[in-house]
Amino acid sequence: MTAMKYPQRVLRLQERLKRKKVSGMLVTHPGNRRYLSGYTPGDHSIGESSGMLLIPSRGAPYLLTDSRFSLEAEHEASGFAVRLYDKGLGACLKELLPELGIRSLGFEGDYILYSTYNRLEKMTGKLGIRLVSLGGTIERLRIIKTDEEIEKIRASVLLNEEVFRKIYARIKPGMTEREIALAMDNEMMMSGAESPSFQTIAAFGENAAKPHAVPTDRALKPGDTVLVDMGLVLDGYCSDMSRTFVAGPPGKTFIDRLRIVRRAQQEAINAIRDGAACRDIDRAARRVIRDAGYGDFFGHALGHGVGLEVHEEPRLSSRSRRKLRTGMIVTVEPGIYLPDWGGIRLENMVVVRDNGCEVLNRDATFLDM
Amino acid sequence: MTAMKYPQRVLRLQERLKRKKVSGMLVTHPGNRRYLSGYTPGDHSIGESSGMLLIPSRGAPYLLTDSRFSLEAEHEASGFAVRLYDKGLGACLKELLPELGIRSLGFEGDYILYSTYNRLEKMTGKLGIRLVSLGGTIERLRIIKTDEEIEKIRASVLLNEEVFRKIYARIKPGMTEREIALAMDNEMMMSGAESPSFQTIAAFGENAAKPHAVPTDRALKPGDTVLVDMGLVLDGYCSDMSRTFVAGPPGKTFIDRLRIVRRAQQEAINAIRDGAACRDIDRAARRVIRDAGYGDFFGHALGHGVGLEVHEEPRLSSRSRRKLRTGMIVTVEPGIYLPDWGGIRLENMVVVRDNGCEVLNRDATFLDM
Repeated sequence: MTAMKYPQRVLRLQERLKRKKVSGMLVTHPGNRRYLSGYTPGDHSIGESSGMLLIPSRGAPYLLTDSRFSLEAEHEASGFAVRLYDKGLGACLKELLPELGIRSLGFEGDYILYSTYNRLEKMTGKLGIRLVSLGGTIERLRIIKTDEEIEKIRASVLLNEEVFRKIYARIKPGMTEREIALAMDNEMMMSGAESPSFQTIAAFGENAAKPHAVPTDRALKPGDTVLVDMGLVLDGYCSDMSRTFVAGPPGKTFIDRLRIVRRAQQEAINAIRDGAACRDIDRAARRVIRDAGYGDFFGHALGHGVGLEVHEEPRLSSRSRRKLRTGMIVTVEPGIYLPDWGGIRLENMVVVRDNGCEVLNRDATFLDM
Repeated sequence: MTAMKYPQRVLRLQERLKRKKVSGMLVTHPGNRRYLSGYTPGDHSIGESSGMLLIPSRGAPYLLTDSRFSLEAEHEASGFAVRLYDKGLGACLKELLPELGIRSLGFEGDYILYSTYNRLEKMTGKLGIRLVSLGGTIERLRIIKTDEEIEKIRASVLLNEEVFRKIYARIKPGMTEREIALAMDNEMMMSGAESPSFQTIAAFGENAAKPHAVPTDRALKPGDTVLVDMGLVLDGYCSDMSRTFVAGPPGKTFIDRLRIVRRAQQEAINAIRDGAACRDIDRAARRVIRDAGYGDFFGHALGHGVGLEVHEEPRLSSRSRRKLRTGMIVTVEPGIYLPDWGGIRLENMVVVRDNGCEVLNRDATFLDM
């Protein structure tokens, strides 16, 4: 059954291409590539791609890659014809586009380098092929998760929590941020994760004031706050969770601030449902933090979509008018960050439902203070 | 002394900007950003930047970032004025470009998304500012390493070898690819590395036929070949090394093929010197492999530059006419890959010198068979 999902996804894209009157699309984004084909290699960087898809609006799709990945290509992308572009992508497309009768070619403006676009534009210009920016087209297919995808994300969330709890039980004064982050990463890998879904954060005391802190050799002291932000990739799907706790009994200031963040998170969760605007969810959390006097100390957006990528659409930001829809999955992660003191962030993932939302997390460590 | 290197690098870029008659440059590439400013945060992805530099051709440079990174920005990029673009990059530049009197703005065509360029183009168009693609400008400064940089890269190479040897000594049948890769990563982190410089590869038997194999749960059996490709980041600078060996006594086929790869590597190293063309170095190695009958089984380029990035200029590829110059650092990594059998790759790093090159590696495990 699941083997059918890739042809079905390709068909859905092909319908959209016909509607947009383009005769093919070049897919450069690694998440979109995996979504449509099942081909797993990641890109070393945007300039060093492990391949791209060429989807004609009718007929069999192509996976273009180089000889480093030919085995993965043949094995994983079973419905795709494979072409190796060892003489360069340009040479390959110059041959293949006319062969497939492509007269107008969609591309991903949000995931193609200006220089790549420029070369593509020159080459297609000579062939009389029109280029059309179709940024967001595949993301719009991905934004609503199927039940199968929701279950994969749930499994990713629960495994991530299991890893967190195992390592959490071993945390003691003297351990460094680096040791804790590393222990989390190890436990992820030994539990069957493909990889962490982003660089694991473990930050003590003032270091937690940086929302994207990089683990240092600072050793944990009794009374330090500990902020952990971690996620993993399981069967392609990401999880993302933050917890903040204290090494030893928490003081009143910590408890007060944690309660504010928790209340902000709860208000946002209460507001999430099919039809709610993203910015209204952000506002619901932000209001709690502002009313408590910390309005200047919550600088980032409230949350983001999670799926094949750990950061994807939709964004729960104060500037997003987008409406949430049943089947979307987002993080809810308010925080308070004070440069001289540290930071607190709590992050769970939820599935949007018709009349509310379902929290995927089960872990409640330190949330009940 | 070292604190002066960032202002000096900015000055060298400013001279080039004046020569190119542009009044400022937007630096979006993370390696170039760190090279010019010392600002360390990485980008989650090209669409989620941790900041960019705006370098006017005269006067103080700017670091533009958002509130998530304000502490790192203030602390690390000491010669830079910091502006937070929490209302969007567009709004920030619309204010700052006229303020600095910028009439023509360079940008990195090789590291900016088509969609970002498009928005930038609309905004600057309204302000009467001309955009100029300056891809490669900063890379050309970075391609020749200073003595200080060479010593940092040497330290990275030697630490990487130390990590390899420690874990190598513990490898035994039953261990999985994943366990070995993970043990390498751990040892790197506990030895003071910032991170691996790319996803560590450990591949057994046929799995080694994929040049970019992802570690699996396959367990090591006596007689399996083991290909390890690993590198780390130390104080910003990368290393990259591959070794291939056998669990137990190697058979004749393995030794024969290893010798071919080793000879190919040695021929390339013998050819490297100031003034040699990259494609001639690639050819020197490829000839050995072709003459031995494996010409169809060495699909990738011979090597690449290494520095703040693990893959940077120059490329030792059959298509590169670029000339090597004293102070460049490259990998030399020939390989033979046979789908049903496996693969062998040997990779060292060398510094180009006036009349030859200096191999940075000391490790000779299994090279003397």
